[in-house]
Amino acid sequence: MLKVALLGAGRIGQVHARSIAADGDSRLVAVADVNAAAAETLAAANGAEARSIDAILADPAIDAVLIATSTDTHADLIERATAAGKAVLCEKPVDLSLDRALACLASAEGTGKPVMVGFNRRFDPNFAGLKAAFDAGEIGKGELLSVTSFDPAPPPVSYIKVSGGLFRDMMIHDFDMACWIFGGAPERVTAVGTSVVDPEIGGAGDVDTAVATLTWADGRVAVIKNSRRAVYGYDQRVELLGSEGLLGAKNMLESTVEKITTAGTLSAKPEYFFLERYARAYAAEWRAFVAAVEAGSAMPVPLVEGVAALACAEAATLSAKRGETVAIAEVMAREVSHAA
Amino acid sequence: MLKVALLGAGRIGQVHARSIAADGDSRLVAVADVNAAAAETLAAANGAEARSIDAILADPAIDAVLIATSTDTHADLIERATAAGKAVLCEKPVDLSLDRALACLASAEGTGKPVMVGFNRRFDPNFAGLKAAFDAGEIGKGELLSVTSFDPAPPPVSYIKVSGGLFRDMMIHDFDMACWIFGGAPERVTAVGTSVVDPEIGGAGDVDTAVATLTWADGRVAVIKNSRRAVYGYDQRVELLGSEGLLGAKNMLESTVEKITTAGTLSAKPEYFFLERYARAYAAEWRAFVAAVEAGSAMPVPLVEGVAALACAEAATLSAKRGETVAIAEVMAREVSHAA
Amino acid sequence: MLKVALLGAGRIGQVHARSIAADGDSRLVAVADVNAAAAETLAAANGAEARSIDAILADPAIDAVLIATSTDTHADLIERATAAGKAVLCEKPVDLSLDRALACLASAEGTGKPVMVGFNRRFDPNFAGLKAAFDAGEIGKGELLSVTSFDPAPPPVSYIKVSGGLFRDMMIHDFDMACWIFGGAPERVTAVGTSVVDPEIGGAGDVDTAVATLTWADGRVAVIKNSRRAVYGYDQRVELLGSEGLLGAKNMLESTVEKITTAGTLSAKPEYFFLERYARAYAAEWRAFVAAVEAGSAMPVPLVEGVAALACAEAATLSAKRGETVAIAEVMAREVSHAA
Amino acid sequence: MLKVALLGAGRIGQVHARSIAADGDSRLVAVADVNAAAAETLAAANGAEARSIDAILADPAIDAVLIATSTDTHADLIERATAAGKAVLCEKPVDLSLDRALACLASAEGTGKPVMVGFNRRFDPNFAGLKAAFDAGEIGKGELLSVTSFDPAPPPVSYIKVSGGLFRDMMIHDFDMACWIFGGAPERVTAVGTSVVDPEIGGAGDVDTAVATLTWADGRVAVIKNSRRAVYGYDQRVELLGSEGLLGAKNMLESTVEKITTAGTLSAKPEYFFLERYARAYAAEWRAFVAAVEAGSAMPVPLVEGVAALACAEAATLSAKRGETVAIAEVMAREVSHAA
Repeated sequence: MLKVALLGAGRIGQVHARSIAADGDSRLVAVADVNAAAAETLAAANGAEARSIDAILADPAIDAVLIATSTDTHADLIERATAAGKAVLCEKPVDLSLDRALACLASAEGTGKPVMVGFNRRFDPNFAGLKAAFDAGEIGKGELLSVTSFDPAPPPVSYIKVSGGLFRDMMIHDFDMACWIFGGAPERVTAVGTSVVDPEIGGAGDVDTAVATLTWADGRVAVIKNSRRAVYGYDQRVELLGSEGLLGAKNMLESTVEKITTAGTLSAKPEYFFLERYARAYAAEWRAFVAAVEAGSAMPVPLVEGVAALACAEAATLSAKRGETVAIAEVMAREVSHAA
Repeated sequence: MLKVALLGAGRIGQVHARSIAADGDSRLVAVADVNAAAAETLAAANGAEARSIDAILADPAIDAVLIATSTDTHADLIERATAAGKAVLCEKPVDLSLDRALACLASAEGTGKPVMVGFNRRFDPNFAGLKAAFDAGEIGKGELLSVTSFDPAPPPVSYIKVSGGLFRDMMIHDFDMACWIFGGAPERVTAVGTSVVDPEIGGAGDVDTAVATLTWADGRVAVIKNSRRAVYGYDQRVELLGSEGLLGAKNMLESTVEKITTAGTLSAKPEYFFLERYARAYAAEWRAFVAAVEAGSAMPVPLVEGVAALACAEAATLSAKRGETVAIAEVMAREVSHAA
Repeated sequence: MLKVALLGAGRIGQVHARSIAADGDSRLVAVADVNAAAAETLAAANGAEARSIDAILADPAIDAVLIATSTDTHADLIERATAAGKAVLCEKPVDLSLDRALACLASAEGTGKPVMVGFNRRFDPNFAGLKAAFDAGEIGKGELLSVTSFDPAPPPVSYIKVSGGLFRDMMIHDFDMACWIFGGAPERVTAVGTSVVDPEIGGAGDVDTAVATLTWADGRVAVIKNSRRAVYGYDQRVELLGSEGLLGAKNMLESTVEKITTAGTLSAKPEYFFLERYARAYAAEWRAFVAAVEAGSAMPVPLVEGVAALACAEAATLSAKRGETVAIAEVMAREVSHAA
Repeated sequence: MLKVALLGAGRIGQVHARSIAADGDSRLVAVADVNAAAAETLAAANGAEARSIDAILADPAIDAVLIATSTDTHADLIERATAAGKAVLCEKPVDLSLDRALACLASAEGTGKPVMVGFNRRFDPNFAGLKAAFDAGEIGKGELLSVTSFDPAPPPVSYIKVSGGLFRDMMIHDFDMACWIFGGAPERVTAVGTSVVDPEIGGAGDVDTAVATLTWADGRVAVIKNSRRAVYGYDQRVELLGSEGLLGAKNMLESTVEKITTAGTLSAKPEYFFLERYARAYAAEWRAFVAAVEAGSAMPVPLVEGVAALACAEAATLSAKRGETVAIAEVMAREVSHAA
């Protein structure tokens, strides 16, 4: 039974609290949050205690820490928690600064403690099924990967301003998807971004519509499309063209009801956003973390892979700004292979 | 907070125990089962006590009883529980004998206590969505309803022999679906059954493949197809042709992954069986029961509607045997309207 | 090069004229119609001559006759044309009277001339693909066949009155589909029909909504659903449940365009009616006739199979009237096996 | 009745010959080809004469010329035919050299004769339906367009060597699709290409897998994916995200048959290649040309739009080589708006 402390009692922290409670091999014992009331409420609802982060890290009875605080605290908390001997699951991204993330990685690796990054989409049964079929050789060699990832609506501009920009904040999930499926980081990134959804986003110096093309040394290509707005819901699809066929993972729809009238055939739209679409993924993600910690096996999404996704985001940001292709090696010397 | 006792700790009882636990407005306090160890285990896992049925019914602190025992005990337990002042949710069918079910109905109605029958499919979001769209007039007047309902594999012949036959055991769900969607029991039933799946089922005097056609006085028609075996999984679909269009609820598939090769496009098969397909339906069914008991409002699936489905099954059994159409009035004098 | 005369220059005659013209191995040389102007127009458009039926049958240069006249003339024309030594393709049905059709069959068989009945749906690439996959054993033994067949709108009541009733006029296509797929006529037919679409149809003594269930001696079952009205178009689907899976042929849609908005996902409706849906089937039907005549091989849809479909219609009409199952043997002594 | 001469009797010429013959308002009178036998055969099959190009251009009875010869002759023949007073439909591309195409455009415009470029995909009912729905405002403002275009198998390397490269030879169709849908040429092109399908293609200096991202001044983005190989067939899809929804045009499949077994649900693969997929598009393209010539109205795909697509190809070729974004203005000074 893994004893767990949750840092961060906001919306995503609450999702994780449910996963911890539902998993037969883990138990939530403490919750910390800068908002003491939020910590109290979430702790009470789960039979846990609200405590300070210091108290949690000092408690030898706590085995693992789940970091769901604001992004700017992630790297510090990873370093402190691993130094305190805890296993860590940290929400993405590791940090908005690649240099800071690399330093954190070095520090955490020095402790020998396991750190996993919360790239929840890898645990979506559809994407995991696609990956498994690909790894089993069902479409031969992978050649051209396409990731479609649209949010239903843009966040407030106040959030945009501190987000690090679309490539680091939103597309980072898709960079991880591409690196994970292809088993390693790309050689080069070519990115284009514009503001066509909301001029305020452009005014804040960010983009709301973007395409990044990743290439690997052997010619494989991945293309990622992002938009901050798809009014019909959360559009999350992956397609992989291989030498012997194509694998796709489509959207999950709100229902299977269809209506045929003179107007045509009307069926459901996609699940609205990540809480609906990735409900099962969050539970599976936590399950995988607990199982790996208990078995002492490799982290399903090791910290270094979270840093690799950030390197792609850094390169994409540079590429879009310069109007030219950027080599990953320019932004990060270290090579990363992803486990199969 | 509704305090609940669960009678029956078998497979379906365990499903219900999870629903009771997950619902914020109900709490499982006691479990009874003829298998004492099963009751103990399930009770312990849910912070409840294993008790005898007598003790449960005698306990004024228990508000509601969920009956998930074997079919032959349903009618007795409904009568005893309502007489003891409990609200009841009972698994289908009420009884294999229509006469016994009618007697049970009279008895329960005499107590004034609410009794709901566990026709879980009404709470499937897809079928509920179809029904809501139909009731909202989206396809005009209903004319021809089709229900496809295939199990993945036949039960053991030992079960078949005590099941009451396919029409009472399996098609009863579909009779309820038809009566629910059309808002009342049909006037006539015409049924045909054969044994083509497994000769042992035919040898036991039952059918494994059947079609029933229900007609209403105003010309509406429902056709139900059942097979004991669809090797690809649980095939559960409804289609309703109306004066202004067609509404359909299709199968839920295991994933959204698809693979296109020279062999064609391969996508997922339907969810395998009722535990997978109706997981959300069971939770919603329990939610609806709790809400209705607490509000003192009408039962979502009142006992009389469970009896109406049984009357259809009785008429279908007779029709298939005689090779002729049977009027519902021949088997049950009482008319039943279903709430919208 | 098969020299062909077309009897009947109406809507379906015009469809056939196009098929004859488009086929490299046949040539339209003569057209006859009670409406002389219609015959002239169609003949002129195809480089053929308008002639009387007598003249056509007397002309030894004409190899084959395509009968697309009104139903009441079919049996006579089949007899006369075969007696005159012509190969015949005749539109369905052979006759509204089973006795007359049987007499026609005997007469035509006496001449040794090939006669094919125009069950165009067998030549639809989708249904033909389903049949081929089934015959190849892809789903094991066939157990439960479902045929959905809805017209977009009912014909005028004046037509209904002389149509022979829904079972003979409309469902005859579906009886043939079932017999063709299962390779022979059923043992019994159980049918139900109502008038819910249009009270005038009921007033004319016919039904507009009907279900027929066919059973074979070995337990196989086919269920056919007909409605005279599906406002969204021509709904033509077949599903076959077998011991190892299910084969389905779905509707052809007007396009592949889809639109996803907050209202849901809107895609196309089915092709509107038989001219659109079965355009390719008519061409393939004619191709199959020409090929069989030229090769001297068995007719793809021999006259006896057209009579078998009519026997099913006769039995269904009786069954619906009596409210009981009717054996095919009651209406037709002769057994019919369909070629694989 | 438009009297037409066909230049080029190869595979695509034969497709066009069928369209000319099938259209009631045009008649094929002459065929020319460097292979005299091919011209004779095609002419004979269509009741036309084989003639030299000189003879055709000198014949005042010929109204229009369809150019389906090899690419290197297109610009010359457009110039000669328009100078001779003929209306012209020319297969794509106008030329491999943008400069040559611009010169041809100037020359043809000088004659005042109508010239249409054979971008057949615009006439595919699915893409045309998407465009019509978009122009009708059904998804609001267009923001992000995606074009997927994969061939079933790469052409021989001998062809690749003279093709002008993937961007000019294959992606030109998709550049036209993007410009047509968005109503004008983009401001900038960013392209990436690799050779991962076949090393011989890379060895020949070309790419077989490519992504181009087009941006417009107002922030609209189009992304095009090309692969020379999708073993399952011709993958031709378009998706357009707008401010109020998404429009998509999916592949046409070989049939509607589906098979569900324990292995999953198997349905058809896409139509194999352009002759199957675009059969209706070729006929509609010809119809549109004839109608516009007879009405004296604007060409559906005027020559200048063919040149615009070539400018995109030129910019993409440069962009992929340089690893940086290229402005259309760098390769072509002239601005092009596409008709709605």
